[in-house]
Amino acid sequence: MPRFFINKNNIIDNHIIINGGDALHIGRSLRMKIGDELTLCCDKIDYMTKILSISDNEICCEILSQSPICTEANIELTLYQAMPKSDKLEFIIQKAVELGVVKIVPVITSRCIARPDKKSFAKKRERLNKISLEAAKQSNRGIIPEVSDILDFKTAVTHLSEHDFSFVCYEKGGVPFSSVINPSDCKNKNIGLFIGSEGGFEESEIEVCDKTGVKIISMGKRILRCETAPISAVSIIMALSGNM
Amino acid sequence: MPRFFINKNNIIDNHIIINGGDALHIGRSLRMKIGDELTLCCDKIDYMTKILSISDNEICCEILSQSPICTEANIELTLYQAMPKSDKLEFIIQKAVELGVVKIVPVITSRCIARPDKKSFAKKRERLNKISLEAAKQSNRGIIPEVSDILDFKTAVTHLSEHDFSFVCYEKGGVPFSSVINPSDCKNKNIGLFIGSEGGFEESEIEVCDKTGVKIISMGKRILRCETAPISAVSIIMALSGNM
Repeated sequence: MPRFFINKNNIIDNHIIINGGDALHIGRSLRMKIGDELTLCCDKIDYMTKILSISDNEICCEILSQSPICTEANIELTLYQAMPKSDKLEFIIQKAVELGVVKIVPVITSRCIARPDKKSFAKKRERLNKISLEAAKQSNRGIIPEVSDILDFKTAVTHLSEHDFSFVCYEKGGVPFSSVINPSDCKNKNIGLFIGSEGGFEESEIEVCDKTGVKIISMGKRILRCETAPISAVSIIMALSGNM
Repeated sequence: MPRFFINKNNIIDNHIIINGGDALHIGRSLRMKIGDELTLCCDKIDYMTKILSISDNEICCEILSQSPICTEANIELTLYQAMPKSDKLEFIIQKAVELGVVKIVPVITSRCIARPDKKSFAKKRERLNKISLEAAKQSNRGIIPEVSDILDFKTAVTHLSEHDFSFVCYEKGGVPFSSVINPSDCKNKNIGLFIGSEGGFEESEIEVCDKTGVKIISMGKRILRCETAPISAVSIIMALSGNM
């Protein structure tokens, strides 16, 4: 059955209104009609619905039943990703969303080659959030993870330190994830994960992380590309916390 | 210091001969000269050498010292990958090599859309092995993982059953990796990992795996793309076995 994400505001009593591009897509591309059934997802709940009325601009559905989504992890993992070159951020967002992160925060660190300012990134952000939406649909997520505004290093570390647990992956040292993550400690916790760009982190940046309480993690002796590291780290965190 | 892989045959007493494209590359592109130092890797050993003579066709190096490579995992993980569409296999090979597999075996399963015959795959294989070589250099591996001939499903399962441990990832059931992998049991073992193509596996294929002793693994409830699953699974196996 086709499945779409909706806004909370569009749920009115026992009905859900769909408008914009999704309405057009459901009517025109999927050729759905009055009486057809649709799954609509909002905030970790799937609503099984039936179409009551349909036009290019608006579809009105009746809620038949609802069930909580079981695909969300029992941790809230936010990926702080230092800006990589070219289209690697798009790739990282797609994979991180499939693997279960709740938010992606792009960060400018000392060794980033790509250094967009907030204005030029704002334009890109819309596209990145569409990639997140598509990945969320494909992997059957219960939420659409947000790609946030770009942060500078200092602000990112402040945000990281506010998580229940936070980690930074460093190629020159640290402890393995397996020594700091287990299912019972992590349950219902929010976790921040910081991954470097192509050049990794400066030693001084790692010192700042360390002083702020962000745990330094080693991902072994093989050198990972900057787009491999986040996919690998998110997978490992999900597995070690009992979510994969 | 530049680092190249060499064949065992090219080590003669205290000297190493480099020829072919690497010789040209070292002389012309890197502009290295007599007396310059080079790291040459063969079979998990790094040889620190000094150039004695150099031409476009052949470079002769003297071995100054040697040290075992510390980037190899203490498990031998072979990835059996059902043929995906388009260039996804190239991507999977690059990432799997970075993450530490020792071999990649492409397999034709029931739901593969790409179904090259052995002849047409043989041409492609040369290119795939080059991707493995480049990824091995980039990630500082001690060996160049081989991309093997393509296998049919039945042969692949026979090979899988010959490993010390073997796993098949299935979206409709199974146990998590964390319940079957731990560092003490896995050390020095060879492990086979079977990942499906876009459509996943047929139930009948999973039954064959099960009967042959290949453990069925669930990677959680989120649906992973066929190129995400192998990267994620290899990462998790490496982490749980104490290799990341």
